[in-house]
Amino acid sequence: MANITKKVSWSGRGEEGTPLLNGAEEVKYNSQLSSGGMFHIGRLSTVDLDEDITPEEDTVRSKPKEIPHNEKLLSLKYESLDYDNIENHLFLEEERRMSHMSFRCLEISRWVICGLIGVLTGLIACFIDIVVEQLAGVKYDVVKKSIDKNTEIGGLSISLILWAALNSAFVIVGAVIVAFFEPMAAGSGIPQIKCYLNGVKVPRVVRLKTLVVKVGGVICSVVGGLAVGKEGPMIHSGAVVAAGVSQGRSTSLKKDFKIFEYFRRDTEKRDFVSAGAAAGVSAAFGAPVGGVLFSLEEGASFWNQMLTWRIFFASMISTFTLNFFLSIYHKKTGELSSPGLINFGSFDLESVKYNLYEIPLFIAMGAVGGLLGALFNVLNYWLTIFRIRYVHRPCLQVMEAMLVAAVTATVSFAMIYFSNDCQPLDTQKSSEEYPLQGFCADGEYNAMATAFFNTPEKSVRSLFHSPPGTYNPWTLSLFTLAYFFLACWTYGLTVSAGVFIPSLLIGAAWGRLFGILLPYMTPNPSVFADPGKYALMGAAAQLGGIVRMTLSLTVILVEATGNVTYGLPIMLVLMTSKIVGDYFIEGLYDVHIKLQSVPFLHWDAPATSHSLTAREVMSSPVTCFNRVEKVGTIVDILSNTSTNHNGFPVIIQTAASEEPGKLCGLILRSQLIVLLKHKVFVERARSRLSQRKLQLKDFRDAYPRFPPIQSIHVSQDERECMMDLTEFMNPTPYTVPQDTSLPRVFKLFRALGLRHLVVVDDDNRVIGLVTRKDLARYHLGKHGLEELHLAHT
Amino acid sequence: MANITKKVSWSGRGEEGTPLLNGAEEVKYNSQLSSGGMFHIGRLSTVDLDEDITPEEDTVRSKPKEIPHNEKLLSLKYESLDYDNIENHLFLEEERRMSHMSFRCLEISRWVICGLIGVLTGLIACFIDIVVEQLAGVKYDVVKKSIDKNTEIGGLSISLILWAALNSAFVIVGAVIVAFFEPMAAGSGIPQIKCYLNGVKVPRVVRLKTLVVKVGGVICSVVGGLAVGKEGPMIHSGAVVAAGVSQGRSTSLKKDFKIFEYFRRDTEKRDFVSAGAAAGVSAAFGAPVGGVLFSLEEGASFWNQMLTWRIFFASMISTFTLNFFLSIYHKKTGELSSPGLINFGSFDLESVKYNLYEIPLFIAMGAVGGLLGALFNVLNYWLTIFRIRYVHRPCLQVMEAMLVAAVTATVSFAMIYFSNDCQPLDTQKSSEEYPLQGFCADGEYNAMATAFFNTPEKSVRSLFHSPPGTYNPWTLSLFTLAYFFLACWTYGLTVSAGVFIPSLLIGAAWGRLFGILLPYMTPNPSVFADPGKYALMGAAAQLGGIVRMTLSLTVILVEATGNVTYGLPIMLVLMTSKIVGDYFIEGLYDVHIKLQSVPFLHWDAPATSHSLTAREVMSSPVTCFNRVEKVGTIVDILSNTSTNHNGFPVIIQTAASEEPGKLCGLILRSQLIVLLKHKVFVERARSRLSQRKLQLKDFRDAYPRFPPIQSIHVSQDERECMMDLTEFMNPTPYTVPQDTSLPRVFKLFRALGLRHLVVVDDDNRVIGLVTRKDLARYHLGKHGLEELHLAHT
Repeated sequence: MANITKKVSWSGRGEEGTPLLNGAEEVKYNSQLSSGGMFHIGRLSTVDLDEDITPEEDTVRSKPKEIPHNEKLLSLKYESLDYDNIENHLFLEEERRMSHMSFRCLEISRWVICGLIGVLTGLIACFIDIVVEQLAGVKYDVVKKSIDKNTEIGGLSISLILWAALNSAFVIVGAVIVAFFEPMAAGSGIPQIKCYLNGVKVPRVVRLKTLVVKVGGVICSVVGGLAVGKEGPMIHSGAVVAAGVSQGRSTSLKKDFKIFEYFRRDTEKRDFVSAGAAAGVSAAFGAPVGGVLFSLEEGASFWNQMLTWRIFFASMISTFTLNFFLSIYHKKTGELSSPGLINFGSFDLESVKYNLYEIPLFIAMGAVGGLLGALFNVLNYWLTIFRIRYVHRPCLQVMEAMLVAAVTATVSFAMIYFSNDCQPLDTQKSSEEYPLQGFCADGEYNAMATAFFNTPEKSVRSLFHSPPGTYNPWTLSLFTLAYFFLACWTYGLTVSAGVFIPSLLIGAAWGRLFGILLPYMTPNPSVFADPGKYALMGAAAQLGGIVRMTLSLTVILVEATGNVTYGLPIMLVLMTSKIVGDYFIEGLYDVHIKLQSVPFLHWDAPATSHSLTAREVMSSPVTCFNRVEKVGTIVDILSNTSTNHNGFPVIIQTAASEEPGKLCGLILRSQLIVLLKHKVFVERARSRLSQRKLQLKDFRDAYPRFPPIQSIHVSQDERECMMDLTEFMNPTPYTVPQDTSLPRVFKLFRALGLRHLVVVDDDNRVIGLVTRKDLARYHLGKHGLEELHLAHT
Repeated sequence: MANITKKVSWSGRGEEGTPLLNGAEEVKYNSQLSSGGMFHIGRLSTVDLDEDITPEEDTVRSKPKEIPHNEKLLSLKYESLDYDNIENHLFLEEERRMSHMSFRCLEISRWVICGLIGVLTGLIACFIDIVVEQLAGVKYDVVKKSIDKNTEIGGLSISLILWAALNSAFVIVGAVIVAFFEPMAAGSGIPQIKCYLNGVKVPRVVRLKTLVVKVGGVICSVVGGLAVGKEGPMIHSGAVVAAGVSQGRSTSLKKDFKIFEYFRRDTEKRDFVSAGAAAGVSAAFGAPVGGVLFSLEEGASFWNQMLTWRIFFASMISTFTLNFFLSIYHKKTGELSSPGLINFGSFDLESVKYNLYEIPLFIAMGAVGGLLGALFNVLNYWLTIFRIRYVHRPCLQVMEAMLVAAVTATVSFAMIYFSNDCQPLDTQKSSEEYPLQGFCADGEYNAMATAFFNTPEKSVRSLFHSPPGTYNPWTLSLFTLAYFFLACWTYGLTVSAGVFIPSLLIGAAWGRLFGILLPYMTPNPSVFADPGKYALMGAAAQLGGIVRMTLSLTVILVEATGNVTYGLPIMLVLMTSKIVGDYFIEGLYDVHIKLQSVPFLHWDAPATSHSLTAREVMSSPVTCFNRVEKVGTIVDILSNTSTNHNGFPVIIQTAASEEPGKLCGLILRSQLIVLLKHKVFVERARSRLSQRKLQLKDFRDAYPRFPPIQSIHVSQDERECMMDLTEFMNPTPYTVPQDTSLPRVFKLFRALGLRHLVVVDDDNRVIGLVTRKDLARYHLGKHGLEELHLAHT
């Protein structure tokens, strides 16, 4: 690990020139600047820590040459979102002016926005679906014709080249737009949305540009025949739509509709993004309840009935819109039977029945899924490390994507070519859209081609529902093996793509294989007649083993099958695969979040962390401001790039100036910047009485992209002015005493979605500040509580 | 309203001798005792309130003769639960001693407990189902034979008397056990569980005795032919099971298994009760996901992934157990097809399809359901007021129940008697278990009897699935009308019974009526061929209009139909009925909660409450203790029945004794009682060094029924001793500054499930205490923010 010199950002593109933490000289954590007007407080950590916990300074300083492992780092580049309302004078004044009626209007606009989110998300899903189907249709037609022709006259290599070239062409387009225009659109976007909902500000994640690239990218990669799905990206798309619609403006398009201004803050925006993510899941899988649960599982810390109901509304509208427009497209207007992008098809009532003795089989399948999922994640983990080290330039990334596309086409082709699994072609059956005859006799088709020469969604459906005997065991084994490695290689490429469908496909293949082999192993073969059921359980097991979602995934799968009968077995399978998989490695999304060193807060503090108190975890000393502070001081502190703090306690200096001051508020960097920009100085207010008072609107207009301090010009005269922060600071920030245990601090922080938590002593004097990084630093490793290192990556 | 002299408790039995607030002389709110060792702090409310908000004192004192309306009261008799861990020295010591392995073992025991909860809840549901079926079978057989005989030979009045007598006999037994043995078992128990999960300590709600009476009571009332369901009580039963199992002992049976001692506190117990309630819903409706959502909607303030997953596990196990044992009972072992007590039957794939133009119809049905639901609730509200005033003695309650039973039987009988809706009897159809011929020709049966002469679950299923033409419109109209008033009269009787099934039945009846009439109103009758679909929507609309649940109800209904296709229309119907219904009156459960004056905390503070601050809502002055306090003082304060405080801030007295002291902790009445019981005095510790140190176990053994202070004898000598509270108090209670707005206080309080929140000034001095009652007092009425009066009822 010693030669990791760069660390690519999530987007897959290296933030070049950002040196990794490689010695104590550059470490800036915790050592906060304190200059004029500020004061020092000595670090009070005198309480003993557990033996295996070494304070970070010691570790870093004692081993200045050793570069910590990637995973053991916590990046300082991510800011937090503030889900706590800043209840300053301006805000309270506005709230107090508002009548009951205005609150009702706000509530109605929230519903309208959720409806819009649903409609737009549904339309995007519809657009993706139709374009993919059209383009894939054209592609398969061309290739099929070529293969059919060349099988007879020889020269199949031309067909292979044609296929590979077509695939690569699509993939290159997809990879180029992602790598060069908006790297944030890479991958499924689910880890990013998870982080956003958790409270981490992931740059550029909910921008319009990201959405456009994402949609274009996912179309290209699916049509390009990669082992990817178009479902994961829908969740990201829904979130972007929500963030855009709810703000009533687009910064990218420089268009402000002057509506929904009340919602221009993190708290409200997050609620809408939850709704957008739910709408995305709903459109992807036709699973509105699953969507709500996904949002809640990933995002909500505080459950609110009305919010949940609104999220559900957005989900419902989204699946309805998709359904409605697809019904028009399929020329069956009004028949609402395709609720999601992936549709597992209806399991008919006879085949869905399971019996008690099948439950141990399902559990065993869950364990297999857990093992295979862990293997997938481990392989992908090493691959990602490799990519972080060596494949971080956009052109390299595009080339890798092209390579994967070509290899995928070649492998598929070779397997179809060498497969001799010929099945009689039943012309009544319309499920085979592109039956490839290959080297089969007339009136037969190649079964391997059904799995490979098709969009993955259709392959999944075919594995679930094709009658027994459609696939032979060898075909399925080979397919599983090939697709497993292809999917693993593909995830993490610089293309927009999801991992849901490939996982389902791998699982369905080995599940069906299991179902086919089962009758040979039992005395009474007739009871295991239907391999489709096992394909479904295999799909659940594999997906569960890879992503490790719990309740939401169960509900998504149940909704996608359209039948609640499978609820219990799916839950058992997912539970087993999660337990087995968690023994080896975390879920795929968490692996990627960890590799990005995101300060992600889990549900609870690590179990054994009661030994730590706020005094040990807090950052100290704290940079504070006085209620009325000199402009020069403020500008200097904000300009100090080495600290780059975002929240500053406001204090009243006591008579004895040696002592730290008493807490009277909290102000954010973003607020100070707006104040400086509008030059809200005490002297100016005195001299020009008619000056417009700063309003909440000014803060909202600047949200969320506050200008950097460098862009604000402050003259030497103005530096001598004073700024009165009283009206703008949050006068009632949450505080904890210094002896509070870490789990208690964690609970307060997480439940209320805080960004800064002030630690005070018995006299209400500021002695420290707890932020997200201070809490995310502790995690439970193999040897008890471990501490991550902070790094400026 | 002026002559309400008594107020019955929830249990339906009057707490006789408890005078209602009827004059300022008896009002004890907020005026806290302060005696030796304590200090006064003047009430600091000097900030202006909105015009329409009058501080309670003024209201009460200026109109001493006016007795406030029931609904406008907030009872002081309910204590709160404490969902915030008391992290005192003992607790932290224990946590720090525990290894990672012990935490894992705890986690495993949590899963085991949830499994047990599921199994036991499923078994109880199974028991209820089988006993009801057997007893109802016997009853209907006897009555049917009598009717068949008497129809031929005349003298049907004998049959009527027989029927009425049988019904009354069952109902009397059910009413007697409820009224005389455990009044808490009355009703569905859902409002009580809602309150418990909200954090209100409802006395006796999770006791074993309540469970036994509940199960017996619900069997009697269902067999007794009342318009009730057995589903609601399952939720209460599941909760009791959970509370019992998770504590590893039964206080009623005086049996302590010495296991699960770690879980003997409010936080952990609540989590298990959530699981129990979910398991109950799951067993009742075969809706495991719905169960989880119900628990979350009603209970959880902080969503935790692992907790949710465990709750889901309990739900799944519960429906599985029920399913498995019922399959044995029905002699189809292993065929898991009856997942809940009520099973809507499977809607076959052709009939479930709905078309776009039906959606407005569904929405209209939702509106009708909202109106009818509101009517139901208003009638029941007046009825409940009447009952509170006049029917509060147990014998009167039993008589009322008997009367209702007799009237129900008579009405049913009369309607069957006068109905001439004869339908051909198809002997192939097994759905009619007790076809009554009545005055119909041979080979025909009376359709009205299908609806009345049957358990309500079967009637619902018949309305959903009987082929078109089974019922004629007159039968349905009369049935709806009769059942509506019967159900409305029945809810609130002193019997164990739920309102879900009657609501579904009323709705299904008018829904089917609507479905039958629809073809007559449209040019193209053939498209509206299936009235069963409208019966389902009507049922959803009516139930939604009465109970006003949102997401959870949607999912419960979807799961009960076994088909996700109806998700969108059911949601639209429920949403409409909620909006329409909320315009007139709250949901039935909320009406009953309000009539009991429970300090129930909703999701958010009232919208327009930003004008209030902690200073105005807090109780002040506060009774505080010193760190080392005289035993006599503690005993005196705890014995003072007029205040009956439960939480006391612990302070350090500053040099200037005039000033209030600085906060250093919070101690509960229950802890003080344990301390007094074990005589943990400073002097004793000095004199006998070998004395056993008080451990967490001593507090857990006393949980949850701490002895009253009167039972603890403290001698005159001991009164002079001192008690050191340092080790036992919570040293880091949550605090807020006095300027914090009400919504902010509310959010902190609700999100963390607090019981006491200390209000401090800038110097960390205690100036007030916010409890549940202080927050629940404010609500949004017709004329803006209103304040409820506190009453010692």
